[in-house]
This record gives sequence, structure tokens and C-alpha cells, in this order.
Amino acid sequence: MPQTLGKGIKRLKGVDYVMEEKKKEEFIENDSKSKVIVDPWGKDLVQDYARLIREFGMDSFDNNIFPEPNLQMRRGVNFGGQDLEQIAKCIKDKKPFYCLTGIMPSSEKIHLGTETVIQNVKYFQDQGAKTYVLIADVESQATRQVPIEEGKRRALAFHIPAYIALGLDPKKTHFYFQSENKEVSNLVAICAQKVTENEFRAIYGSVHPAKVISAFTQMGDILHPQLGEPMPGVIPVGIDQAPHIRMSRDVARRLREEYGFFPPSAIYNKYTSALDGSFKMSKSEGIGKIEIPEKDTKDLEKKINKAFTGGRVTKEEQRAKGGQPDICVVFEYCKNHFIKDDKTLSKMYEECVTGKNLCGECKAKYGNPYAKKFFEDFAKAFEKAKKDVAKMKIGKE
Amino acid sequence: MPQTLGKGIKRLKGVDYVMEEKKKEEFIENDSKSKVIVDPWGKDLVQDYARLIREFGMDSFDNNIFPEPNLQMRRGVNFGGQDLEQIAKCIKDKKPFYCLTGIMPSSEKIHLGTETVIQNVKYFQDQGAKTYVLIADVESQATRQVPIEEGKRRALAFHIPAYIALGLDPKKTHFYFQSENKEVSNLVAICAQKVTENEFRAIYGSVHPAKVISAFTQMGDILHPQLGEPMPGVIPVGIDQAPHIRMSRDVARRLREEYGFFPPSAIYNKYTSALDGSFKMSKSEGIGKIEIPEKDTKDLEKKINKAFTGGRVTKEEQRAKGGQPDICVVFEYCKNHFIKDDKTLSKMYEECVTGKNLCGECKAKYGNPYAKKFFEDFAKAFEKAKKDVAKMKIGKE
Repeated sequence: MPQTLGKGIKRLKGVDYVMEEKKKEEFIENDSKSKVIVDPWGKDLVQDYARLIREFGMDSFDNNIFPEPNLQMRRGVNFGGQDLEQIAKCIKDKKPFYCLTGIMPSSEKIHLGTETVIQNVKYFQDQGAKTYVLIADVESQATRQVPIEEGKRRALAFHIPAYIALGLDPKKTHFYFQSENKEVSNLVAICAQKVTENEFRAIYGSVHPAKVISAFTQMGDILHPQLGEPMPGVIPVGIDQAPHIRMSRDVARRLREEYGFFPPSAIYNKYTSALDGSFKMSKSEGIGKIEIPEKDTKDLEKKINKAFTGGRVTKEEQRAKGGQPDICVVFEYCKNHFIKDDKTLSKMYEECVTGKNLCGECKAKYGNPYAKKFFEDFAKAFEKAKKDVAKMKIGKE
Repeated sequence: MPQTLGKGIKRLKGVDYVMEEKKKEEFIENDSKSKVIVDPWGKDLVQDYARLIREFGMDSFDNNIFPEPNLQMRRGVNFGGQDLEQIAKCIKDKKPFYCLTGIMPSSEKIHLGTETVIQNVKYFQDQGAKTYVLIADVESQATRQVPIEEGKRRALAFHIPAYIALGLDPKKTHFYFQSENKEVSNLVAICAQKVTENEFRAIYGSVHPAKVISAFTQMGDILHPQLGEPMPGVIPVGIDQAPHIRMSRDVARRLREEYGFFPPSAIYNKYTSALDGSFKMSKSEGIGKIEIPEKDTKDLEKKINKAFTGGRVTKEEQRAKGGQPDICVVFEYCKNHFIKDDKTLSKMYEECVTGKNLCGECKAKYGNPYAKKFFEDFAKAFEKAKKDVAKMKIGKE
């Protein structure tokens, strides 16, 4: 049985995909074909997100509240949110609001899952949000031993043009360095007055000084666009960032009288699977992940070909029962990143679940060519964005 | 019996005063006259400092290690230190070192005890220290609700000229605003990595987030002059600041390999008594204290006349036994601030303990005129210093 997770999103054994009504029925039917196969990990994942929503007191994500939801919203990559109605209202009433995200310039790569965040930022930017992108050069120095000047260099040479290449409008995005933004560091001391030791421990598990500094710096980043002009804001994040959102919302309420702050809203996206199908594609682990950029086409092809799929034990079984796109990493990447066209994605899905394509065939027809195209498009856009960045004034002059 | 507290400082029932050898004998003799009177508060004070030295693992202060020790050093206002030998060595070898202090711009007054800190900073400045004075406008906003711009205004209008009027050389002192110094806020994140939750709790008693932010900001201030050019530094402070020194020294050691930091040295001064003789003259409490400036001479006179002294119950008793300068607030102020000339101070002491002067007579002859002169001199120097400050570039241009 599909689970409903907010209006308009049907969960098909972990595959969250908003389809035309007609398609939906077919998919449910297809889905039922493979229902004897129960993948514990796949089911856990579904349960996890449902549990997260329940336990974190967040709202399930309802993309009907937004005009023209983007691919990530429609395809269920965004699964939860917090107070998104205030953002929907700003969009509807054309009232000012902001959107903020951050870059950790610890390596000259970004992980594929970050594309979701960037697409969400782009969405809100297109809907009129004032857009802030912070470069966490201070955090990067403190936690990854990247000297501040090197962090800045990497951000200017890679991250900022990459974010632009993936969709942000360079003219409408305010990029800033943590190491230069005194508004943020000054806000840190104000916010820290408003949280007790026990509250902090309850939210973060411990009160390690480095955690305190890091958490309040993030809070300063999240709230500082409201200094001078209080307004709602939306922070697109992975679920691991939920504690920051929760504490920022509490502190914003406590500073409401003095500073007029609105509790920031959040839109949450799911983790991206690693190539071997394991849960989170972490930036820190070096093996088995697809990163942006992937410059070497052969290397990319190897990765896709080795990726964990939803194939059956034997060819015959797969032809008979169909594959399982709900646990297939290649399908996940295509759905969340590489294949923008809904019809093409539907075909990929159908040809899998009906047993028409075996995994190798699917990779040759969909996985590899669309991944290749994604990175070729990126490379072109990146070269153009580098020229934009060269003309921009970012940070100290 | 006088207690020895470091070479050259004899404690006479709480009176710490370095005298010519000849005078000393007389004083001990005089002291013995009044030994039947035991003031518990006075004795506790002596025990307190001895206990502090023992329990905090600090060194007792030995002014013989420094060339031409200043009035505060000679007269026992400085009672303890940490690692001061490295500073003495820098002075002797003409090697670079620094001295740092801070201003909390929460009101346009400074408390009399702060003069001791300023005189110590001036001493080390005269001995060649690079001198840093931070204005804690961030802390002042966070903890006292003084907006940053107002904190800056107060510092420029009052504190900075006051520090210059009390002896700092405007040409040799680097004044900076916490709200503008990114080196400090960037160092905060690095230092916080080096302290565990339990260590922090052991030193500060709790791990309240505001305490964490404040402590590491102070640490950033204390260590940042060593960025780029590691060198010993000395921080003149009241004993309440000892935890900051202790943690800064630990963290400096832990960052030694990466940044070359020297653990900072400290020179500790005693609390200043309030006018009623109670322990600490706090900036926060509004009653019964002498502050800098005291503009109203009549008001100042009233304060001195109402001050707690070491007088006896009856005139007759006082003429016979003499007064008790060791518990007299007026003597303390004269010794630590108002009377620079040793001979004059000795006369004041003698005329008290021999019963020659009753307290009213002593106040008329010493307390009032020297207090008045101190503040008149300050007022003149302050007007001059304001002109210096107008020409200085402090903070952002």
C-alpha cells in the first residue's frame, strides 16, 4: 500500500514520485508486482522519514502550497518542512523573504546531494527570495585545518562558480565569507544568551565548546539577514541540520521582542545514497560516490556500472518480476538529479519494473547517458560562471 | 607577625607596603601596638590571597624580577602572577612581547580599581611591550544590552581618552573594537576545538553557551597578538579573571605546534574595597564607590568623609592605641591610587597608627586633598587625551 506523505506525494516502497494521476495507478500496479520482495533497508528508510517527521515535530512537505514546484519538490526529494506556510504567503503576497545556504570549502568538490539544496535555493530565488550563500571558511579552518585564505581561494575558484553553474543567479545572490562577516559573529554572542546549557545538551547531545561555537555561528548565519529588516526566511537543508533549525527557531522567538526576528522556515531533503546503496553520501568519505564535477567520463561510467541497483538474482527472475527501482541507486540519481524530463523518467521506471530492461541495459540507456549529459552541461555552465565570478565583488575589496 | 608574600613584600596585617628597611622596623613595632585588635575581615583578606595563590597554582608576585617596579607593584596591589619570568626575560633581553587589556564600554565611568590595571599596562608599555586594548562592544551588547554603535561611541568619547589620561601612550597603544576584529572571532573557533566539555566545566563551573562564547572570545583576544608573530604576552587582571588566563595558557600550549603560541603570562591585582569597606568595588553596583571620573568635588568629599576607616570606638582609645590603616578604605585608596610619594604615604600611616591623627583629621590632611588632586590631574589629562583621540584612527575608517 502506498503511504501518503503530505498531499500529492505517494510513497511507493520508498520511491517518492509525484506522477500524473494516470501514471500513478500504473505504478501502484507495477509496484504490487514486486511486493513480495521486502528490502529491509528500503522499508526502514521509509519508516525513518515518517519517524523523523513525527519525532522532530516537523511538517510533512506539501508542494501544493508553492507555485510551480521544482523537480526536487515534485519528486519527493523534499520530504519535510517547518513553517513553510509563511514562505508560501510571502510568495503569494509578494512580501520580502530570504533564503540562505552555506558552503564548506574544504575540498574542490561538492557532493551530488548538494544539488538538491542548490535547486531549492534557486527555486526560492526565482520566487523572489533575497539569497544568501555563506562560505564557512572559519569552520573549515577550525574543523578541517584548511587555512582561511585557502578556503577563500577554493570558494572563489570552485564553489561559487559551481553554485552559479547549477542555477543561482550571480546578480541576485549575496555570497559572503564567514571570516569577514562581523554581523554574524556579533549575533553569536547575543543568541548564546538565550539558550541554557541543558537546552543545548537536549538538542545537540553534548555541550562541547567547539559544538557551541559552531552551532551559534550557524545560528548567526541563519538569522543575520533579518538584522535591520526582519522577515521570514527559508533554509533548505538535509535532515542532519534539523537541530540548527530547531534552535534557531527557538532563539528567534526569544529575540522577537528586541529584534523582531521571525522564526526561520526550513525545507528538508533526503539523504543521497552512496554508490553501494548505503545511506548517506558523505563528503568526508572518499570511496564510492559521485561528486560534482565528474570530469573523467570513463571514470563516471565505471562508477555507474558498479553502482548498487534493484536487480534480481537471475536474469530470468528479473524478466519475470521486474527490477526494483525503489532501492536502485542509479534510478535515485536519475530521478533526483540527471533526468529532468518526467516522461523519460517514467519510461525508465516502467522498463525496469516490467522486466523489459535488465540493469545493464537500463544503465546503458538511461544511467550512463543522462549522467554524462548532466556533467557535460555542468562543465559548460561552470566555465561561463567562472567568468561571471571574475567580474563579481565578493568579500573584502 | 608579618607574613612574607614574595621577596620584598611584607604583610602587616593586610597592609602590603614595601618600605625602606628602617621604616619597616618602625611599622612592625607600630603594628604590634594594635595587635590585640583582630578584624576578622582584614585577616580573612590576607588568608584569601594566600589561599588563592596556593589553590590557583599561581606564583606569588616578586617585584624584584622587574626593573623599576611601579607603585602598584611596590605597594603590594599586585600580589600574584603567572609565568612572569618570561616577561622579565623579554625586558632584559629586549625581545618582543605584548601586553593586553580590555574595556567594557557599558557605562561612561571606570572603577577606581581599573587604574591598577592601566598602571600595569603602562609599566609594560614603558618597558617595550606592544600594547593592545580591546573594546568589548560585542560582549557589552550581548550582556548589558548596549548596542554596538553606542558602545563604540562611549569608548571613543570616554574610555579611550581616560586610559590615555591615566598613562597609556596613544602612539604606542593599539585600540580595537571586538565587533571589528575578525582575527579574534576566527581564533575563537580554533581555540574551542582544544577544550573538552568537562575541562570547561571544571574551570568555569558550568557550560552555559553564553559563558562558552564569552570565554573563547576573551581567549581569542588574549592570544591573537601572537598570530603571525608568536611572542610572550602579559595580561594584567583582577583575580576574577584567573580562569581565562588558566584556560588560555592550556590552549596556547595545545596550539603551540601549529601556531607557535606562548602561554600568556599574567599579573594579578587585588580587589579594591568599596567605600563601606566591603570586598570588591563592582562596576555594576551603583552605591558607595569612587569612580573615575569624580567631577563634583563636594560629592567626592562627602564620599571620603563617609568612607569606612580603621578608627577606634572612642577618641581616647584612638589617641592611645592608634588607628588601623590596614582596614581603612581611605588609606587603601591613598596607597593604591592617590598618593604617589612614598614619604607622604609613610607619614599618613605613621600619624594614623601612633594616634596622632584621628580619622577626621587624617581625611582633611590626606584623604580629601590627595583624592581631589588625583581627579583634578585626571580631568586635565582627560581633556588633552580627547584631543589626541580625535586625531587617532581607531577601528574602521
